[in-house]
Amino acid sequence: MVAASRLERLLAALQRLPGVGARSAARMAYHLLQHDRDGALALAQALREAVEGVRHCASCHTLCEQEVCATCADPARDASQLCVVETPADQAALERTGTYRGRYFVLMGRLRPLDGLGPEASGVRALLQRLQTDAAVQELILATSFTAEGEATAHVLAQLGRSLGLRVTRLARGVPLGSELEFVDLGTIAHALADRRPT
Amino acid sequence: MVAASRLERLLAALQRLPGVGARSAARMAYHLLQHDRDGALALAQALREAVEGVRHCASCHTLCEQEVCATCADPARDASQLCVVETPADQAALERTGTYRGRYFVLMGRLRPLDGLGPEASGVRALLQRLQTDAAVQELILATSFTAEGEATAHVLAQLGRSLGLRVTRLARGVPLGSELEFVDLGTIAHALADRRPT
Ligand SMILES: [Zn+2]
Ligand SMILES: [Zn+2]
Repeated sequence: MVAASRLERLLAALQRLPGVGARSAARMAYHLLQHDRDGALALAQALREAVEGVRHCASCHTLCEQEVCATCADPARDASQLCVVETPADQAALERTGTYRGRYFVLMGRLRPLDGLGPEASGVRALLQRLQTDAAVQELILATSFTAEGEATAHVLAQLGRSLGLRVTRLARGVPLGSELEFVDLGTIAHALADRRPT
Repeated sequence: MVAASRLERLLAALQRLPGVGARSAARMAYHLLQHDRDGALALAQALREAVEGVRHCASCHTLCEQEVCATCADPARDASQLCVVETPADQAALERTGTYRGRYFVLMGRLRPLDGLGPEASGVRALLQRLQTDAAVQELILATSFTAEGEATAHVLAQLGRSLGLRVTRLARGVPLGSELEFVDLGTIAHALADRRPT
C-alpha cells in the first residue's frame, strides 16, 4: 500500500480518543470536513494550546495553566484539611455548596484495577508526594465517587492516610450509592460533608 | 468571568464533534493531557492537514486529496453504470465483492429529514449536478442503506433518475433489512447486486 492518506491519518488520530472506534471516527471526520472545517481548525488549535500550556498544579494535581492553581494559591483556605476528589467537576460541585473552606487534591482519575490503572495513573502517587511534603495537613477528607471504583480508591487512600498518622474521613453516605458527585444536588452534598465520619 | 482557559477552550472544541457531550469531552481532554500528549498533537496535525488537503472528488463526491479520485480516474470502469452509496466504507464493501465494474457516486451522508438534513447536506444536489453533466450514465444503481433513512434517500433518487430518463435499479432485498452495507457479508452483497431490479 502507499502511505496513508490525510483522511486515513485523521481517522487513525481520532481513534486515539477514548471511546472512539472506527465508526465514530468516520462520522466525526466526515462531519468536520463537510460541515465544520472551522470546528476542525478550532479543535486543532485548542489541542496545541492545551498541550503547550496546561499542566498539573504542583500542589493539588488539577489541570491548570499556572505552576499552582488559583484555589491552592488562596491563603484563606484552611491548610489542615485536604479533600480528595476525582475530577475538577467534582471539586466544583463541592465548592458550590459554600460549606468547605479547606484545600483540595484532585486525583484526575480513580483506581481502575480492571483496566490496569493503578496508583500511578490515578494520581494516588502524586497525592502521596503531597502528603509527605505538606506538614500542615491533619485531616484527609475522602470525596471520591460512591461507585465501586471510587470506593476502592477511598479504601486505598484511607490506608495511606492512616499510615501517615492523619485523621481520615469519608463523605457521609447521604450521597446516593452508585451516583457520581457532579450530578448530586447541593443540599445532599452539604449534608454528607457535615456528616463525614472517621473510616 | 475572565477569558476561557485553554482547558475550557479544548472542552468546547471537542464538543463540536458529533456525539460528544460535556462528559465525553472532559474524559477525552483529561486522557490526552495526562496520558497521550503525543496523540493530542498528532490529532491537531491530522486535522490541519485534512482541512488543507482533503476535498470532494469533482466526479463522485467522495473525500480525496486530488481533483478527481483514483476510482473515477480509472478509464477501465464502465461509465454507463453509476452506483450511488452513502459512504466510502459502503463503496469499499461493494468493491470487495469484485463483481461491479461501473462507476460510483458517494453521497457522504443520506437524507435525514428529522434532523433537518435535506438534499443539500446529503449530497443529493451534487448527484443531480453529476447526472446533468455526465451524458454517459444510463443506469442509476441505488445502493443506499436498507434503513428507513436509506430507503427514503433511494426513493428520492429513484424519482430524480427517472425524471432524467435513466434506468433506475436498487440492490435486491437479499440485504437484510435494518442493516448497513458495510457490515454485510460479501456473498449477500454480490447476490443483491446480481438481483438488482427496476424500481
Ligand atoms: Zn492546585
Ligand atoms: Zn471520485
